[in-house]
Amino acid sequence: MDRRELLNLLTRVRTGSLSVVRALERLRHFPSEDLGFARMDNHRAIRQGFPEVIFCEGKTVSQATTIARRSLLRHGMLLATRASREIFNAIKAKAPRAEYHPLSRAIVVKPLHPTTPVGQVLVLSAGTSDIPVAEEAAVTADILGSRVETLYDVGVAGLHRLLSQLPLLQEARVLVVVAGMEGALPSLVAGLVSAPVIAVPTSIGYGANFQGLAPLLAMLTSCAPGVAVVNIDNGFGAGYMAAVINLIAQGQGGDS
Amino acid sequence: MDRRELLNLLTRVRTGSLSVVRALERLRHFPSEDLGFARMDNHRAIRQGFPEVIFCEGKTVSQATTIARRSLLRHGMLLATRASREIFNAIKAKAPRAEYHPLSRAIVVKPLHPTTPVGQVLVLSAGTSDIPVAEEAAVTADILGSRVETLYDVGVAGLHRLLSQLPLLQEARVLVVVAGMEGALPSLVAGLVSAPVIAVPTSIGYGANFQGLAPLLAMLTSCAPGVAVVNIDNGFGAGYMAAVINLIAQGQGGDS
Amino acid sequence: MDRRELLNLLTRVRTGSLSVVRALERLRHFPSEDLGFARMDNHRAIRQGFPEVIFCEGKTVSQATTIARRSLLRHGMLLATRASREIFNAIKAKAPRAEYHPLSRAIVVKPLHPTTPVGQVLVLSAGTSDIPVAEEAAVTADILGSRVETLYDVGVAGLHRLLSQLPLLQEARVLVVVAGMEGALPSLVAGLVSAPVIAVPTSIGYGANFQGLAPLLAMLTSCAPGVAVVNIDNGFGAGYMAAVINLIAQGQGGDS
Amino acid sequence: MDRRELLNLLTRVRTGSLSVVRALERLRHFPSEDLGFARMDNHRAIRQGFPEVIFCEGKTVSQATTIARRSLLRHGMLLATRASREIFNAIKAKAPRAEYHPLSRAIVVKPLHPTTPVGQVLVLSAGTSDIPVAEEAAVTADILGSRVETLYDVGVAGLHRLLSQLPLLQEARVLVVVAGMEGALPSLVAGLVSAPVIAVPTSIGYGANFQGLAPLLAMLTSCAPGVAVVNIDNGFGAGYMAAVINLIAQGQGGDS
Amino acid sequence: MDRRELLNLLTRVRTGSLSVVRALERLRHFPSEDLGFARMDNHRAIRQGFPEVIFCEGKTVSQATTIARRSLLRHGMLLATRASREIFNAIKAKAPRAEYHPLSRAIVVKPLHPTTPVGQVLVLSAGTSDIPVAEEAAVTADILGSRVETLYDVGVAGLHRLLSQLPLLQEARVLVVVAGMEGALPSLVAGLVSAPVIAVPTSIGYGANFQGLAPLLAMLTSCAPGVAVVNIDNGFGAGYMAAVINLIAQGQGGDS
Amino acid sequence: MDRRELLNLLTRVRTGSLSVVRALERLRHFPSEDLGFARMDNHRAIRQGFPEVIFCEGKTVSQATTIARRSLLRHGMLLATRASREIFNAIKAKAPRAEYHPLSRAIVVKPLHPTTPVGQVLVLSAGTSDIPVAEEAAVTADILGSRVETLYDVGVAGLHRLLSQLPLLQEARVLVVVAGMEGALPSLVAGLVSAPVIAVPTSIGYGANFQGLAPLLAMLTSCAPGVAVVNIDNGFGAGYMAAVINLIAQGQGGDS
Amino acid sequence: MDRRELLNLLTRVRTGSLSVVRALERLRHFPSEDLGFARMDNHRAIRQGFPEVIFCEGKTVSQATTIARRSLLRHGMLLATRASREIFNAIKAKAPRAEYHPLSRAIVVKPLHPTTPVGQVLVLSAGTSDIPVAEEAAVTADILGSRVETLYDVGVAGLHRLLSQLPLLQEARVLVVVAGMEGALPSLVAGLVSAPVIAVPTSIGYGANFQGLAPLLAMLTSCAPGVAVVNIDNGFGAGYMAAVINLIAQGQGGDS
Amino acid sequence: MDRRELLNLLTRVRTGSLSVVRALERLRHFPSEDLGFARMDNHRAIRQGFPEVIFCEGKTVSQATTIARRSLLRHGMLLATRASREIFNAIKAKAPRAEYHPLSRAIVVKPLHPTTPVGQVLVLSAGTSDIPVAEEAAVTADILGSRVETLYDVGVAGLHRLLSQLPLLQEARVLVVVAGMEGALPSLVAGLVSAPVIAVPTSIGYGANFQGLAPLLAMLTSCAPGVAVVNIDNGFGAGYMAAVINLIAQGQGGDS
Repeated sequence: MDRRELLNLLTRVRTGSLSVVRALERLRHFPSEDLGFARMDNHRAIRQGFPEVIFCEGKTVSQATTIARRSLLRHGMLLATRASREIFNAIKAKAPRAEYHPLSRAIVVKPLHPTTPVGQVLVLSAGTSDIPVAEEAAVTADILGSRVETLYDVGVAGLHRLLSQLPLLQEARVLVVVAGMEGALPSLVAGLVSAPVIAVPTSIGYGANFQGLAPLLAMLTSCAPGVAVVNIDNGFGAGYMAAVINLIAQGQGGDS
Repeated sequence: MDRRELLNLLTRVRTGSLSVVRALERLRHFPSEDLGFARMDNHRAIRQGFPEVIFCEGKTVSQATTIARRSLLRHGMLLATRASREIFNAIKAKAPRAEYHPLSRAIVVKPLHPTTPVGQVLVLSAGTSDIPVAEEAAVTADILGSRVETLYDVGVAGLHRLLSQLPLLQEARVLVVVAGMEGALPSLVAGLVSAPVIAVPTSIGYGANFQGLAPLLAMLTSCAPGVAVVNIDNGFGAGYMAAVINLIAQGQGGDS
Repeated sequence: MDRRELLNLLTRVRTGSLSVVRALERLRHFPSEDLGFARMDNHRAIRQGFPEVIFCEGKTVSQATTIARRSLLRHGMLLATRASREIFNAIKAKAPRAEYHPLSRAIVVKPLHPTTPVGQVLVLSAGTSDIPVAEEAAVTADILGSRVETLYDVGVAGLHRLLSQLPLLQEARVLVVVAGMEGALPSLVAGLVSAPVIAVPTSIGYGANFQGLAPLLAMLTSCAPGVAVVNIDNGFGAGYMAAVINLIAQGQGGDS
Repeated sequence: MDRRELLNLLTRVRTGSLSVVRALERLRHFPSEDLGFARMDNHRAIRQGFPEVIFCEGKTVSQATTIARRSLLRHGMLLATRASREIFNAIKAKAPRAEYHPLSRAIVVKPLHPTTPVGQVLVLSAGTSDIPVAEEAAVTADILGSRVETLYDVGVAGLHRLLSQLPLLQEARVLVVVAGMEGALPSLVAGLVSAPVIAVPTSIGYGANFQGLAPLLAMLTSCAPGVAVVNIDNGFGAGYMAAVINLIAQGQGGDS
Repeated sequence: MDRRELLNLLTRVRTGSLSVVRALERLRHFPSEDLGFARMDNHRAIRQGFPEVIFCEGKTVSQATTIARRSLLRHGMLLATRASREIFNAIKAKAPRAEYHPLSRAIVVKPLHPTTPVGQVLVLSAGTSDIPVAEEAAVTADILGSRVETLYDVGVAGLHRLLSQLPLLQEARVLVVVAGMEGALPSLVAGLVSAPVIAVPTSIGYGANFQGLAPLLAMLTSCAPGVAVVNIDNGFGAGYMAAVINLIAQGQGGDS
Repeated sequence: MDRRELLNLLTRVRTGSLSVVRALERLRHFPSEDLGFARMDNHRAIRQGFPEVIFCEGKTVSQATTIARRSLLRHGMLLATRASREIFNAIKAKAPRAEYHPLSRAIVVKPLHPTTPVGQVLVLSAGTSDIPVAEEAAVTADILGSRVETLYDVGVAGLHRLLSQLPLLQEARVLVVVAGMEGALPSLVAGLVSAPVIAVPTSIGYGANFQGLAPLLAMLTSCAPGVAVVNIDNGFGAGYMAAVINLIAQGQGGDS
Repeated sequence: MDRRELLNLLTRVRTGSLSVVRALERLRHFPSEDLGFARMDNHRAIRQGFPEVIFCEGKTVSQATTIARRSLLRHGMLLATRASREIFNAIKAKAPRAEYHPLSRAIVVKPLHPTTPVGQVLVLSAGTSDIPVAEEAAVTADILGSRVETLYDVGVAGLHRLLSQLPLLQEARVLVVVAGMEGALPSLVAGLVSAPVIAVPTSIGYGANFQGLAPLLAMLTSCAPGVAVVNIDNGFGAGYMAAVINLIAQGQGGDS
Repeated sequence: MDRRELLNLLTRVRTGSLSVVRALERLRHFPSEDLGFARMDNHRAIRQGFPEVIFCEGKTVSQATTIARRSLLRHGMLLATRASREIFNAIKAKAPRAEYHPLSRAIVVKPLHPTTPVGQVLVLSAGTSDIPVAEEAAVTADILGSRVETLYDVGVAGLHRLLSQLPLLQEARVLVVVAGMEGALPSLVAGLVSAPVIAVPTSIGYGANFQGLAPLLAMLTSCAPGVAVVNIDNGFGAGYMAAVINLIAQGQGGDS
């Protein structure tokens, strides 16, 4: 409930067009709508500029589809992550414009009249196996209205691959750097650019990788300032964060 | 060495005003200057908009002072973190403008003609004991040219303290949220604003806090998008990241 | 063996109606009955007010069914947790009143003449995926004689959903708060109510959740007093604890 | 701000005796009072029945004393935990009734006209070295109005010591069980009583105790239902939880 | 190669009936026989009183069978642990006397003329789910010549079940105590007997059990002396250790 | 309370020379004597053949001395581990026969008429720095009546040192093997002897030793059967276990 | 790009046969060739003496095959690790000389005219189950031009097996020692030879092995100098390292 | 005891100039000399080319000095690591040629007639704080006869510093790379050279560095082949390993 609505409500209390009791009722029952199993946050679209994203892992097909349909109805767009093809088919049946990104397992329904993408988010991956997570970041930043470039397989062991792309790196407004194994790429990249770097550790690797713990710790202890980290394999979180920063720089983000 | 200088150098190779061998020499020996124990990165001021920050932990007074003096000479400003009062005294003797922030143990020498601070970085702390880390973030963002506000002791157990400051939260362009114990504050804040949140876990707490592991994991697994995390107790890193994002939004950051 | 029975036995030793040797025999062989693979604790019903609950994970269908049948015979009621549908079918064949809760995988046989539920236990879940654990808590508290309300999907990222239900929270005598991810909900809730909060971390999440370690540590280090924690995913333990507290408040629990 | 005050405020908005703008002001600036470094939660006394407890670790003498004085002024009573004797002396100078518990390092100022302690909280410790944590629990429950009994050094290796006190155990309405080393005592106790058990792991021990990790995990995985756990060495948290449960049973706790 | 054989060999060197070079050859090539993939330790039967046990996990059926056949040929007896039924069938085809213990997945071929079992090894399990590990211990101690008794499902939550069997406990010469969950049983048992206790943590449990870490740490930090611990789920190791101690007490173990 | 005493007591109940109520009293108040801060276990001397050992860490000088004096009075002997010289001086003042072992920090008061040491316990240490822990084991086994030999600094990197002592190893009835760093010595030793090996990991080492975690895990996963492990640095526990096994072999241990 | 090529390029800039702009282009676009999903490092063959090895885990059959074909075309040889038989079949169809090592799951295409293997790399495994990792090391060192010997199943519990092969150990120029369980073998071997030892922990084992953590820590804390460690199960890395050292000793490695 | 001596001994057994019994005696008592607290390994000088290095941590001044004097007497040279200045002074009193390296805390006594250093070992450190560990590696490799170069403060955040020294890197025969924080430098270096890289994680850093765990895991999971790792802060181990490899390449190492 934004400030304007609240003032409006209070003014109506003042003027007597709304009783104290009923105002409280509205305050309490609006804007969270009860689906039985999941209270949807319709208000988020206004407060944060984007409808709730559906994290499909651990949800049944029917749960995911119900939330998706309701979200589409209200916002005309959709992002569902970690979705099985089965969930995609169920949603596709209702929303023919739905697209499936098999690598990142994301379902996207773009708005009918999307705005022109702005700024520049660059998504890098250290290895081939990190691409699914990188793609999740790219898809997310894209649907949130950012222009997105990708640069894959530029890990630190072949340094010249990365260095040969220096201009691309330096043009980006925000960078998402995805890496498994020793997770060194974000430190390296942050030393080459002055833009903020969102680091994503992946669970790719074996042995002492410990399901992503190794790159996670490495990224957190990065010797280069200008690096912040999201959860292991959390491509969505990185793409979201990058888009938010990118939009702020465009003068589009923020509450004000 | 930026693109312009490199082109210049190559052109001089082409025109014969610089021999191939000497060009390589300059390429190799410039711009890293050897202090014996620490190669200073003079170039960083140009590449990243701010001279190298001196992390004093594990450095002797004489090492810290030597680096500080050299940095001041070149850049006219200084930020040294985790500095003892002894190091401060040694630097103060050479740089009378130096200020010491006892809580955050930071030494600051502001430029003689500082630019007007821009944007709005809001630094929050969950508890009283988290303030030193929060102060480190605030001091850092401040010297990097950001306007900084602070809001301390607004942890989740007394929710109304936080909610009563909602407007302040929503005015910020970037937020730094510092919390020990269960580290829940960043999730909560990120649910209230649309600006990016830089979360800093602290080692404040005991038992299952495990030197900051508990809030670190909590922040990484935050259910709210728009949160990225820096290392435990890394106020500097958070302040730096916040300032970089804030400056980008001002149209001042980036390489382009 | 309760105090009364013991005094009775000793008195019979005194009066000579029971020999020393046989008394010891009864002491030793009663009340634990040997099923070969599992010694049932019939005495628990008297001592603790409820027959042993059957934890089905790691038990064969035949083991689970044998224990269940014996328990039903003696107590006329049953709670079996983490039960497969196969185990349910086997039990259902013998006990037509048995009900299966597919989400929580609990089997329940209510007593024929249940007492009126008392007090108020409120079970909250932070996300949709935490519901199975929350349901296990609710089912458990219910069969133990507590009146149970549930409130699901009220995580901290959408604060107003929770705040809009404040009266419900404040009416509860005990609260069970189930949360995965960063596990912040119990801290928040405990700051809003004065009733005791039983926190249940879940293994829902990925990456730095580390199978529930993140919310577990968060809940243990909660900055709000009035929170105690049970094992990861242990909905049963939380429901049991909540019911015990609720019954004490009703003047029904305790040994006295 | 409780429901009554809120209704009162809204009614005044309705009747015009309070402007919309000023009501919001009061809503926002009351009841959190700014001490510069710590926002005190005066409201908590009403909402939760007890003023904020002062956790002294990591606070300067002057910070602790300022908060203590303010708290005393408002509530006429005080509990400060993990307090040095230095802090005690500073508080004693202002509050002659202040008492220091050297084992638990707690400072207590009881209310001038305390109510009669009610119910029965039993605090057990497994070893001699666990006593400071146990004392913190006992002191806390005591000042919160509970009748408290203690039973120390009854660890599982000398079972008969515990069993010889069975009646005492079974009379308690709530039990706090403090144990380091292997942390087995809560399981054992919970198998002997039907009252709820609050388990407190301590960092007492060496080697594989890993600063309390061993008993913490043991207590969380307890095979006996009716056990919930608080943070390592958190005697205060356990005493608080026990008192809350005890008061509820007395019909004194809760919001209603 | 035992001392006697070595003296014999050296004497033959002395007397010239064996050349220096050939003696070294025998020293080097005897007694380890090369099967290509596994060097069998035939000598162990003499040195340690029992042929090498075959740990089947990670071995192919054909690898396991080859080793088993060779071992049987030489020693007339066999113990293979963690064996699939497939491996059993392959061995049974060659050794009709082979028996399969499905719970512990052990294959046993007893010697044709076994010695009378001696002493008393008592194997306890805390829960029903710990039985497979306990059975592995029992089977192992049995084939090594110990008299074995078992007592299952006597966990600490139902203390009287254990106490009612006190005489049985006190008759044992060595005890193997198997427990998952919080792993408290060994501490308790060691407080009741003066015989040595071999504790076996199991990976039974969930959440904070962390695959057996919880009971492992608990057993290592046991407050009762007279407890030593083997690896998680290592029933074989516990049974072997118990048998070795039991045999020593019989005057049968040891090198002397 | 042993079986004989219990029968006696019950018989007196039968014959009327003891009332039911008083018998229960004696049952409850005897044999645990209340020192206020520590319930001494006088009964242990009978039940387990040795008075309670005093673990001094975390006890005040006055607590340790009180327990020691009481123990000496009753049993005429004493073992106190992890004792400071200050505690020793306090005890020495009362018990002139007290000896201090500075390396292991153990205080020993031998019985006036000690029995002849029996059997053979061999204590090995891998490195020089492991000696304090090894000494604690040796002192413990010695006062418990075992003949003890020691062999120090025979780590696996200089294999011939160990092999040159093979006869000594093979003469021992029980071996205690103390090792820090990689903790490989117990596996090696267990492969050379048929006697049981009690392994003690030490916290000696740095880096990946992680306060003894490395050798602890190594010893638990030993590929050699006949190894059981006690807590990190727990020389006392190992010496106690070794002595118990040694005495059983002598026909002196056990309850029967 | 090696020094010679760079000088050549710069000289052409100087002489005008190459424009500044195009030189930069070549610098940037050469030698990394874009396959869309993976940038191949053709240059590595020159810089490091061997084409990029293909780590197949997490790659699709088509991804692996495309990279393999390209690599074969350029270098006439191939090493692919952790390859399924399905990937092998796809590569075999294109490269009939391809061989599959089922134990180590490596695909090898040797060069048509291989050089004579040099030096001596000895690969040891502690147990039968460690052989797959050992084989990966052996295959790798072999294709890199080293003469390789293997010695399997020589774990520390049967010491004489190892000692009987002392001459073989002492002939090796580099040793790869593969061990699971307690990981003691490398320490032991390093004490017997003066050549460098590359230690490989394996995830073989159960319980406290914790997926290879136990032997990893053991190897890192080895008391014997001359040991360095690679990742858990990383046979390839060990074989590569051994081959590099072996070749240096042959005067073939290095950049000079 | 080398092969030659053994043959000699055996021949004397054959010829009768040595009795079987006395030969065994010599075999057993030679060459390990008993200092009471530490068995010195005089033989190591022959077997491994260098006398035992003295690790001073955890040794008393008198223990360290005794071992040092004995070692000097036999070998005319000395390396003692982690030595306090107090130990240095004690050794200096006996050995005037002793030198102290305060940064690495190493004591060195070079041989009177040292051989010319050979090959090239390059020691790199990522930060200024890593220098003590790097110095320990350099001092060690130096006294073992290697030519050593150092290159400090070339961490990944300032990539050009490292790249400007490429020729130096490529001239080295072995590289030791020391890094704390995220530990990325070894991966980077290994991608630039073909010589073997010995990686040393340091405990420099804070928070998620977890005493060196972060760089340790990063180095183990390095994406670049040709990297092997030693223990955290183990400069000595890295210098030793590097020297051994360097000497092999010189044709000086090995047993043959």
